[in-house]
Amino acid sequence: MAPLDALTSTLTAFSLNPTATLTHAATTSPATWRAALAASRSAPASFELIKTLVYKPKTAKTAAPVPVVVIARDATETELGCHRQGAQPQGTASRVARSADGVQTIVDASIASSPGPFALHAHSSSATVFLSGADILAYLRTLETEDVKLQEIDFAALASTVAPAAAAGAAQAKAPAKEKEEAKIEGAIQIAIGVKKEVDFSTWYTNVLIKADMLDYYSVSGCYILKPWSYSIWEEIQSWFNTQIKELGVQNSYFPMFVSAKVLEREKDHIEGFSPEVAWVTRAGQSELEEPIAIRPTSETAMYPYYAKWIKSHRDLPLKLNQWNSVVRWEFKNPQPFLRTREFLWQEGHTAFLTKAEADTEVRQILELYRQVYEDLLAVPVIPGIKSEKEKFAGGLYTTTLEGFIPTSGRGIQAATSHCLGQNFSRPEMFNIFVEDPTGETKQKTYVWQNSWGLSTRTIGVMVMVHGDNQGLVLPPRVASVQVVVVPCGITAKTSDGQRAEINGACEELAKTLKKAGVRAKADLREGYTPGWKFNDWEQKGVPVRLEIGPNDLAKQQTLSVRRDTGEKTPLSLTDIGATIDALLKKIQSEMFERARDAYYSRLKEVTHWDDVVPTLDNKGIAVIPWCEVEACEDDIKERSGRSAEPQDERAPSAGAKSLAIPFDQSLWTPIEPGKTKCPACGKDAKRWTMFGRSY
Amino acid sequence: MAPLDALTSTLTAFSLNPTATLTHAATTSPATWRAALAASRSAPASFELIKTLVYKPKTAKTAAPVPVVVIARDATETELGCHRQGAQPQGTASRVARSADGVQTIVDASIASSPGPFALHAHSSSATVFLSGADILAYLRTLETEDVKLQEIDFAALASTVAPAAAAGAAQAKAPAKEKEEAKIEGAIQIAIGVKKEVDFSTWYTNVLIKADMLDYYSVSGCYILKPWSYSIWEEIQSWFNTQIKELGVQNSYFPMFVSAKVLEREKDHIEGFSPEVAWVTRAGQSELEEPIAIRPTSETAMYPYYAKWIKSHRDLPLKLNQWNSVVRWEFKNPQPFLRTREFLWQEGHTAFLTKAEADTEVRQILELYRQVYEDLLAVPVIPGIKSEKEKFAGGLYTTTLEGFIPTSGRGIQAATSHCLGQNFSRPEMFNIFVEDPTGETKQKTYVWQNSWGLSTRTIGVMVMVHGDNQGLVLPPRVASVQVVVVPCGITAKTSDGQRAEINGACEELAKTLKKAGVRAKADLREGYTPGWKFNDWEQKGVPVRLEIGPNDLAKQQTLSVRRDTGEKTPLSLTDIGATIDALLKKIQSEMFERARDAYYSRLKEVTHWDDVVPTLDNKGIAVIPWCEVEACEDDIKERSGRSAEPQDERAPSAGAKSLAIPFDQSLWTPIEPGKTKCPACGKDAKRWTMFGRSY
Repeated sequence: MAPLDALTSTLTAFSLNPTATLTHAATTSPATWRAALAASRSAPASFELIKTLVYKPKTAKTAAPVPVVVIARDATETELGCHRQGAQPQGTASRVARSADGVQTIVDASIASSPGPFALHAHSSSATVFLSGADILAYLRTLETEDVKLQEIDFAALASTVAPAAAAGAAQAKAPAKEKEEAKIEGAIQIAIGVKKEVDFSTWYTNVLIKADMLDYYSVSGCYILKPWSYSIWEEIQSWFNTQIKELGVQNSYFPMFVSAKVLEREKDHIEGFSPEVAWVTRAGQSELEEPIAIRPTSETAMYPYYAKWIKSHRDLPLKLNQWNSVVRWEFKNPQPFLRTREFLWQEGHTAFLTKAEADTEVRQILELYRQVYEDLLAVPVIPGIKSEKEKFAGGLYTTTLEGFIPTSGRGIQAATSHCLGQNFSRPEMFNIFVEDPTGETKQKTYVWQNSWGLSTRTIGVMVMVHGDNQGLVLPPRVASVQVVVVPCGITAKTSDGQRAEINGACEELAKTLKKAGVRAKADLREGYTPGWKFNDWEQKGVPVRLEIGPNDLAKQQTLSVRRDTGEKTPLSLTDIGATIDALLKKIQSEMFERARDAYYSRLKEVTHWDDVVPTLDNKGIAVIPWCEVEACEDDIKERSGRSAEPQDERAPSAGAKSLAIPFDQSLWTPIEPGKTKCPACGKDAKRWTMFGRSY
Repeated sequence: MAPLDALTSTLTAFSLNPTATLTHAATTSPATWRAALAASRSAPASFELIKTLVYKPKTAKTAAPVPVVVIARDATETELGCHRQGAQPQGTASRVARSADGVQTIVDASIASSPGPFALHAHSSSATVFLSGADILAYLRTLETEDVKLQEIDFAALASTVAPAAAAGAAQAKAPAKEKEEAKIEGAIQIAIGVKKEVDFSTWYTNVLIKADMLDYYSVSGCYILKPWSYSIWEEIQSWFNTQIKELGVQNSYFPMFVSAKVLEREKDHIEGFSPEVAWVTRAGQSELEEPIAIRPTSETAMYPYYAKWIKSHRDLPLKLNQWNSVVRWEFKNPQPFLRTREFLWQEGHTAFLTKAEADTEVRQILELYRQVYEDLLAVPVIPGIKSEKEKFAGGLYTTTLEGFIPTSGRGIQAATSHCLGQNFSRPEMFNIFVEDPTGETKQKTYVWQNSWGLSTRTIGVMVMVHGDNQGLVLPPRVASVQVVVVPCGITAKTSDGQRAEINGACEELAKTLKKAGVRAKADLREGYTPGWKFNDWEQKGVPVRLEIGPNDLAKQQTLSVRRDTGEKTPLSLTDIGATIDALLKKIQSEMFERARDAYYSRLKEVTHWDDVVPTLDNKGIAVIPWCEVEACEDDIKERSGRSAEPQDERAPSAGAKSLAIPFDQSLWTPIEPGKTKCPACGKDAKRWTMFGRSY
């Protein structure tokens, strides 16, 4: 397929949306190319050039050298410790062309994570398309074959941390033929995820998701495909949470995804928070709708007219409904899988009570369930607290929150929220949800007290960021769809068919035994893959425990266990293995949580002087300050901390610090003395210790 | 609240969409009103007038008569066996006004189920709004109070079947104060659902759904709220089906709801079937999208570009993904809850195989699971078969189907489909999904064989239509969220507090015992409701078994069981009640299925002469004919049977007969003799017995 055909076909199939497509005079160097683009009115205001280089790697003389095509930003240093060759040396116009069979393609990992736009020669040096990094990556992935996968390398990170020769060797580390020992070299680990977590966190994150088979990019920007490996985690959360809320008397239901404009815009404060992001349906088939219809960004205003209809008597209270659905918030900020996506899955609970006390109680019951989802299921520590007035849910009375923390970026992340709406939605000028006085003595109406609460697939993203490492995903046992993988080892060319069958049989038997003991176990008996390749595969996917069985293990009636989280290896007797593994999984679960909790708490800094705020943030910490709780002060903190902060990269959602939560448990910090302890930002009397930090 | 205020506020809150709103000269009679509207250019071409009448019911002299407001079509006879009174006798202009406290409002049930438009005087005789029947009903419901609920009466049905006096008495049958015996009178049963199933099936259907608390109308037309009572049935189906498909190796996943136009339109035959119904998002916040984005009507074209990407080797096969989601088909035909809605919940499975044989096998495995959902869970009989070429899934190779049947309407209904797509979506000019030759001997590509299969919440609608009766819903035990309700009885004014506590305690104890035995049981200990009111409430909601406990039962250590499906009453010993009830529920489940199956099969008519086709259809039967399987003949059958059919009401989806299915089991009918048996429609050689009928 010619490059143009390939590109056109791909643009069509994957709905790549070039920012622009231009033709111009043929160019012969980056300089003339840039000049040609600058002369065009249609080119974007800013862009980067993409270069394509062909290298011949250093190999043993007996081996045929496989050419390596490198696709990188024009400015990136791409020396790989091998000879450059071919028709397109650095400095000439670049083209993105399909590599011939067997040609290894390497892409600069930093491209994928950049919005671009990038200029590419599509089919000749006289035509240019502008694409986002994600689109380039999506296109290159379509060119992958079974044998030759696209490799991503973070050249910037390599330049500072890895010897060039190791990187070149590593470029092919994923091939099935590699041996176990080789799979462990520094370079290979690098390549498994492409970049180091500490060096380029956002690229690391998307790479982990892709390589662990959690997610794929989708042809509509800001939307992602949840593959079974991640969706099964969501199913675990659903199943557990459903059981819990049903015990609280909550019932599941389903409301339509569409909301009429009139209904949506009923609560002004509330909708103000959402309206810039609402997706509107205006056409059906060939017919324009008389009125545009919104896709729900959340369902308060869609549901509450019916609450008004259904609730007539105190006997209809409490009303507790929940729905599992997807909502749409068409954000224009940079999307990030699980954390900020245009459509996401969640549950939204909506409840109504006769009294404030009942509503207050439920707000905290639900927050406690969310805490258990994070801490007990996902082994992710969170801090329960209340949001400041500025950060609370628009239109509600108060918002309780679980604040998570991503140590690698030093940012807080809102993990789940449980809102008390008070009577703001039920009052007569809003949805008018009331019951007649239950005592019957007065004729007064009682407007109901309402809550709403939601937990989304963001849970999964936080879990990946907190636990993942440079080998890939690390799954907490409770949500892993495969908790234990059993891999046959020690099978060589000399192994007899009988021996091979015996080892495979023992692996299958072990998996069966574990399943009977309630462990989600799987034997990986795939032919044509070495143990080393399998180890790497399951490590990337984060399976908590690997069990190896080879001829020696069989002889000793044992298996070698390898923990994904620590790498710790322990031989285990096959006697009573079910109970042993069950205990091991519980140990991993609690140790993962403890490590993450310690990391979180070590970054919570008690700060009482303004001068310590920004350094705390810059050290990837959270400043816990004795705060006055005045909104103007919060604005001021954000502005001042943003101004003096170190320069942030463009993707960073916020440079200034905002209030994350006022923790319910204030006992971690020095007691505040009323009238004495002052807010370090404004000098007013401090009220409560409040977490301030950069956040997602 | 003045009528105008009330109406305006309701129009806003519920997004009622008047077809038109007019002012005109004040009118004094239906004739002058009609003339005023005819003189206006803005009035719809056709409409009906609504009248409002105030009656004073006949009561015992000691009781204060409660006025009854009747809202009906102008042409409807509304004599209720009571004196008419008040300011708005028949013949004057009507107004829809809020009834004063204690005033009973009755609405003509046939209004709700009619699209209208209906003309109403909103606030004076010089202004008219035009509303649909559903909107009128929605408005009237907002006026309900705790004590006074809106009543619906089918006056047409009453006129022919019920003595007027009974209807008048029945109008208040739902009030909690009514006694058990009264709740059972003929009139009360009528009012419970409003109309008889046999008399006005479509009104009966929507009324059952509303009164059983299954569903509510929603402010966006064609969309409905699934309340917990129906959603729990869907959860039962999900849970069972998930277990089954996971055993087949299917994995759940989630793809975005959005599909780009380019991707959607990739398969022409396929999209032709959906494009008139696709909802398009064109705007986000204040920004027009560069390209409109579709909401999925089904996900074949959204998913398969990624199948092409993920499937590289035969080792990647089979690929079996499923998703539970909602899809949108913006139909312009009359919507019907569960059966034809603009958004509906379903699962869609999408699988890919190396060989046709594997795909063929799975198509039938899935169809068998669907059969079990209908027959074993919902007690609804279905006939598995294959669709004709004309009726198969657009773009697929062949479609297998389960055909259900609604005896009351005599119509077939497509219950679920499992499609083999063949290689139509995988071929190179489509999504290009292939693997290299697995033998490795030739270099030929093998294009994968694909299936897709779906089951929707239509299941619930079919179940309601098949099992429901004039008391309301009848739930098959396996999907009932409450299988047994325990109601305390025989508590009178003379009952001591101790006795009352003893009876309530016994009910609670019984429910507990049953729950321990795995029965979904509930004790209804609500205060302020009579046993009769509770009986009626749970009967409407279709709970399979009611257990009554009164003082005499307690003395004898027994409980009186009442079957919802048959009304059969049997005293049961409390000893070993768990096992007794378990057996009873199983018996009900199988007898419900057997009755429905017998009803279905009794309407399947072997027809070998054309002249018998239309009479069979008119007798609410399905004509099973030895068919030639020629598409032109199918068109001809539809045209001819439609032409000669009895006039159908406007809501009927199709008057002509179409082929429903070619049953896999041909043994029910006289063997076809090749070359001898002729198609009764065209005289060509018959191939297989094929079900032809009117359908949904």
